[in-house]
Amino acid sequence: MSVLLDCYAALITVDGKLTCLKDAKIGVEGKFIDYIGTKVPEKKYDSVKNLRSSVVIPGLVNAHGHSAMVHFRGLGNGLPLQDWLHLLWPIEDEMTDEDFESGMNLSILEALSCGTTSFTDMYMHASYVQKAVGESGIKANITRVMQNFDESTDYKTYNRRIEAFDLFKNYDGAYDGRLKIDFSIHAEYTNTEKVLQEFAQELKETEGARMHLHLSETKKEQEDCIKKYGVTPARWFERMGIFDIPTLAAHCVWCTDEDLQILKNKNVTVVHNPESNLKLGSGFAPVKKMLDMGINVALGTDGAASNNNLNMFEEMHTASIVHNGYLLDATAIKALDVLKMATINGAVAQGRDNCSSIEVGNCADMAAVSLEAPHMHPVLDIPALLTYSAQASDVCMTMVDGKILYENGEFYTLDREKVIFEAEKSVDKLCRNI
Amino acid sequence: MSVLLDCYAALITVDGKLTCLKDAKIGVEGKFIDYIGTKVPEKKYDSVKNLRSSVVIPGLVNAHGHSAMVHFRGLGNGLPLQDWLHLLWPIEDEMTDEDFESGMNLSILEALSCGTTSFTDMYMHASYVQKAVGESGIKANITRVMQNFDESTDYKTYNRRIEAFDLFKNYDGAYDGRLKIDFSIHAEYTNTEKVLQEFAQELKETEGARMHLHLSETKKEQEDCIKKYGVTPARWFERMGIFDIPTLAAHCVWCTDEDLQILKNKNVTVVHNPESNLKLGSGFAPVKKMLDMGINVALGTDGAASNNNLNMFEEMHTASIVHNGYLLDATAIKALDVLKMATINGAVAQGRDNCSSIEVGNCADMAAVSLEAPHMHPVLDIPALLTYSAQASDVCMTMVDGKILYENGEFYTLDREKVIFEAEKSVDKLCRNI
Repeated sequence: MSVLLDCYAALITVDGKLTCLKDAKIGVEGKFIDYIGTKVPEKKYDSVKNLRSSVVIPGLVNAHGHSAMVHFRGLGNGLPLQDWLHLLWPIEDEMTDEDFESGMNLSILEALSCGTTSFTDMYMHASYVQKAVGESGIKANITRVMQNFDESTDYKTYNRRIEAFDLFKNYDGAYDGRLKIDFSIHAEYTNTEKVLQEFAQELKETEGARMHLHLSETKKEQEDCIKKYGVTPARWFERMGIFDIPTLAAHCVWCTDEDLQILKNKNVTVVHNPESNLKLGSGFAPVKKMLDMGINVALGTDGAASNNNLNMFEEMHTASIVHNGYLLDATAIKALDVLKMATINGAVAQGRDNCSSIEVGNCADMAAVSLEAPHMHPVLDIPALLTYSAQASDVCMTMVDGKILYENGEFYTLDREKVIFEAEKSVDKLCRNI
Repeated sequence: MSVLLDCYAALITVDGKLTCLKDAKIGVEGKFIDYIGTKVPEKKYDSVKNLRSSVVIPGLVNAHGHSAMVHFRGLGNGLPLQDWLHLLWPIEDEMTDEDFESGMNLSILEALSCGTTSFTDMYMHASYVQKAVGESGIKANITRVMQNFDESTDYKTYNRRIEAFDLFKNYDGAYDGRLKIDFSIHAEYTNTEKVLQEFAQELKETEGARMHLHLSETKKEQEDCIKKYGVTPARWFERMGIFDIPTLAAHCVWCTDEDLQILKNKNVTVVHNPESNLKLGSGFAPVKKMLDMGINVALGTDGAASNNNLNMFEEMHTASIVHNGYLLDATAIKALDVLKMATINGAVAQGRDNCSSIEVGNCADMAAVSLEAPHMHPVLDIPALLTYSAQASDVCMTMVDGKILYENGEFYTLDREKVIFEAEKSVDKLCRNI
């Protein structure tokens, strides 16, 4: 199957840079992009898709989240963090495989409707939720997260390690590469040194292993770690050898300059989650400094429980303005930097260098953003429109590996009513009566 | 004409507090709400509107903006503030009545599609743009802003004063009260003491006069005023007697505690514009302090040139999280406080105490927000859904004075294609070739 996208404009990559091409034609053959130009190609495609009122962008990559937490959207809203966590944890303990699956499906429904073609997830019951990724057609890096609080519960982490390696063995690269399995350490403060040292060694011996962890999200986390170990979380993980495998570190709000240098040296990707960091009162990640240092910065929504949505357009908008405010500098963050953070930078962190970048030979992971709404006029500066003005609802098509999964309100791989029904049923059971 | 709205829920006002009423029925007779309850009323309405998948909320009030600046959405994006202003000013000087009208129409189109039922505007050519308010059916407080930079140009301000008073005399209360004329001083730094002292005196003698001004938006403004006059802008305006008439002060980012006390004592409404303040690198207004002091805080988008949209849902989301981040306190700002800021607080500042609050006897200014999208599930906490999860595109109906002006993508009083065409035409002329 082949299709030619006839676009008002497209955000393509030229010499590593995001570039706006007016009147773009994009040819898709099977999974891949095989033509980009302003002229109609000689090759005949099976069909032509009229996107003359849309800008085609690289598929958005939500690089950090906890998908099934969509069930907790709005739960305990306004509570202080600790009270909220204590409300949440017992509910999470009661969640069954089915609850995780219904949550994963609801999150994928939302993601596709917002132009997200791939996401990186940290949560549990991964051997069950992998099916949702497979069936929906989206791309995802999922994990079985490791979390234990003291050495007396280390046996739990051992079991989780076995689960994580089994998962990696059985599912990494499944569904024609759409599914990847990452390894995951929840955070410094939720794990013990002894277990992680062994884990690090095992990971280094595992070809293709990637790591996903939380790093320096709160001031307390940063300060407590220094008190306990005499070093920051970044230094702690580095010494343990965790950063010797490709790592994606979420948050990094309280990283020191020295921490950032460690991340840079070790080629760690930082995932910026501005809306969650603001809502939870965590603070402002030093994103401008990271970008200036050449650190790969990706963008994520975090879980819907602390956001409260999986809307990458809102996340882009927030990321593009909040640092200007914090640094009192209207020029601190550029629209194109944020668009890169939301697309190719996340794909690179996922080990998907040929995704979410519109180039010949790459996977056809794209979204079309309609210019029809009043808030998308005048069309003066397309990157600015996409970053500051667009709503996720302007997405009128989401394509993964050349297949259209979402178009004008319709989902082609998921039964929208059923997914919402099953999710509300899980929520009825889990948290409607608390 | 009467209609009964049969809603999944509604955000009504009970004893001055926003309250969520499940299974709400809201009766509308002509311009006014005449019934609120969970039971079907005995009275027969001409029609029943099925909103069983929606939450009906008070109409949003965008309490500070510069509507026709939609023409500059994305213009000079990423430039430092001064460079951007120097790009903008000569273009503004070239704008004709028609350009202002086409901008006003585009902004109203966007506003209605986002659930905004009333807005407060500070700009020029008001005698021309008033027609757009009249024809569209929306409510607005508009002004002829006063701005001159030194005493040598005071004659300009005298002429503008004449224009402003003429406008007030001719149009205040027009279109059955939907249009109000406010007076407006651009800011301290763009006016001279001599002119404003006389203006203040004239205003005090004008029954029903209201003031709309910019206050302490940037650090430079605050510091320069202290250097020049030895007092802050708030104290400067207060001494001049400007705050003796009902005043709406936009921004107030750099107000000191003493300034806030002045605003509180003088019953000045503060309009918070978080997205513009962040994008332009102005900083963080002390909103929690204002709320704790009992200052009336409303919400606005500012002009689309520095936002870059008129989306009050995004503005609510940003207002609800950014102060938590700045104060490192997840409990700083509550969802219901933000919903009040975006509705009734703005209406009060407009001199429309019976608008944007769902109570029997009030004007039927409301919006329906659909719960159908994936990101609106689960339905656990409706105020949280509205504040943190909703997109403006979830608005499926906007009603002003009992008349539906927007519904499911259709505009009943504006020709959407024509409005967009005229706006793009103005932009072609004004800024496409710079």
